[in-house]
Amino acid sequence: MISRTAPALAVDEIGSFHVGGRIIRLDDLPMRDRVSTPDGPSYRVDPNGEIVVGQLYVQYVRLSAPKAAAPLLLWHGAGMTGAAWESTPDRRPGWLMFFLRAGFDTYVSDAVERGRASFAPFPQVYPEAPFFRTAKESWEDAFRCGPPGSWNPDPALRRSYPDSLFPVEAFEAFMSQCVPRWSCNDALTQAAYDALLQHFDRDVVILTHSQGGNFGLTAAIHAPERVRAIVSLEPSGAPDPASADPALLNKTPHLFVWGDNWRDSAFWAGSRPASERWRDALAAAGCDVTWVDLPARGVRGNSHALMADRNSDDIAGLVLDWMAARGLVHS
Amino acid sequence: MISRTAPALAVDEIGSFHVGGRIIRLDDLPMRDRVSTPDGPSYRVDPNGEIVVGQLYVQYVRLSAPKAAAPLLLWHGAGMTGAAWESTPDRRPGWLMFFLRAGFDTYVSDAVERGRASFAPFPQVYPEAPFFRTAKESWEDAFRCGPPGSWNPDPALRRSYPDSLFPVEAFEAFMSQCVPRWSCNDALTQAAYDALLQHFDRDVVILTHSQGGNFGLTAAIHAPERVRAIVSLEPSGAPDPASADPALLNKTPHLFVWGDNWRDSAFWAGSRPASERWRDALAAAGCDVTWVDLPARGVRGNSHALMADRNSDDIAGLVLDWMAARGLVHS
Repeated sequence: MISRTAPALAVDEIGSFHVGGRIIRLDDLPMRDRVSTPDGPSYRVDPNGEIVVGQLYVQYVRLSAPKAAAPLLLWHGAGMTGAAWESTPDRRPGWLMFFLRAGFDTYVSDAVERGRASFAPFPQVYPEAPFFRTAKESWEDAFRCGPPGSWNPDPALRRSYPDSLFPVEAFEAFMSQCVPRWSCNDALTQAAYDALLQHFDRDVVILTHSQGGNFGLTAAIHAPERVRAIVSLEPSGAPDPASADPALLNKTPHLFVWGDNWRDSAFWAGSRPASERWRDALAAAGCDVTWVDLPARGVRGNSHALMADRNSDDIAGLVLDWMAARGLVHS
Repeated sequence: MISRTAPALAVDEIGSFHVGGRIIRLDDLPMRDRVSTPDGPSYRVDPNGEIVVGQLYVQYVRLSAPKAAAPLLLWHGAGMTGAAWESTPDRRPGWLMFFLRAGFDTYVSDAVERGRASFAPFPQVYPEAPFFRTAKESWEDAFRCGPPGSWNPDPALRRSYPDSLFPVEAFEAFMSQCVPRWSCNDALTQAAYDALLQHFDRDVVILTHSQGGNFGLTAAIHAPERVRAIVSLEPSGAPDPASADPALLNKTPHLFVWGDNWRDSAFWAGSRPASERWRDALAAAGCDVTWVDLPARGVRGNSHALMADRNSDDIAGLVLDWMAARGLVHS
């Protein structure tokens, strides 16, 4: 918790909106009965009719006197929502507060199907059931708190990397931040993120995590004039240089940041090469690309949840310094 | 949008946390394949293992110098999330901003199964599939934008009440705020709200909408010493005087606010009597109860979405005046 004696943020407005949704119609579903309140009456409801699908949620905090050159859009990763940018699982202020204090107007989204963006019925609209990521997958593979085989439901028997910077004592709180995801909605999600960029009458800075990475990098390809700079924390995918032209991005600086122990993870060992290829293609096209492997700088033990790790403010500071060097804000 | 020339809010911290979750284990589910990024590799995933269920999400905005006597907890209605308190569908500042400007620290929740609180697998954990409220049900029954039979997917053929105060031109944006809900999670949700009250080391003011109403009124019964005052916008249910003792609440002022045209709605005509009974029981027990039927005060055309209607700030002002008369804040 930030002390009440820290300088206050001067906030002009906190609000939200949805972008990208459209109305569809459901038909041929059987009638159902629903109770709205405990012991309340039961109502017969007709599930057939129009619903909205494909929308994305954005919550903004607009400062009275933003100091940054552009608003900052924060895009979460798979199985997460915008809550990932708020308080850390162990209740330290998160990157939302960090970048507000740095002077950015912020726009935190919940992607299509996640959190306050809502999801659509399946199998009627989405063809598959959602995926619920287990604690084991989160601990050992997706977020790399410990090596393969180290998860145990009993915290006393659970092994983390000895130098892990993840706040492992708050792992259950971190799991509480996670939500189900589907694997069939990439096109819907990309379209909503592309629509979000068109919502602004100016260019923006995009900061993504994990699955958000490919959406951000692709959105920049789709609208390079809209993206002033882009920061990708451990993107799980990236555009393919065989079908996307990196030269479009010669005015859009790119920063990639990677934590530790990714070679131990089947998922990350398989996913990282796409980003390396895109980095190389950007560099070959003369773009401004910075690639940070934290262990190569002597910072060991970061998990995939860089914004939740114990040194989250240090990593945010690294990002801010990179932004400041490009004139986006004074660090 | 509030003008940049309006007085800034001095904000100490924006953050969030989850309360009330517990770890359960899924077993005997078949292996699945998942793609994380478009054209990325496919991964075999094991859905069996521990997940967290039953948590509730709370986002707080803490002011540098709150003027109110207690924090304000905002609890949404069925098929909605905390986004209902943010911007109105037609993009005016919502009740979150109103009560922040009035000097309250605010705690906006997403109830169990909604938004950033996540949901659990069904039929493995929840016994039923979610309910997706159709536009017709929202328009004609749940939110009373127009009378029964007035919904039409074509906005030009859609009839609202002639004096409707709902921003009908933004109905699709309002639908975008809505999320699926289940009808099987009342006990989980009540437990999480009860846990939320215990999270504070002081008493609070609760402001609820619709389905949130019964959760709030019941939470007050469960912990009367924690609830300084409670405001219920059109509660869809209320405690039963046959099993709950209203005299417990003789130090907790209650305000109920109702809009227009509820007699036209099968749902509301059936649901409102529970609140009337509880109001009468509170009054008979000597409690401080205020019941506002807006039409009786000459305010016609309010929908069920009082915080979204065109006169949302007027209604918030009515609530604030009621609070101020009870020493909770200076209006």
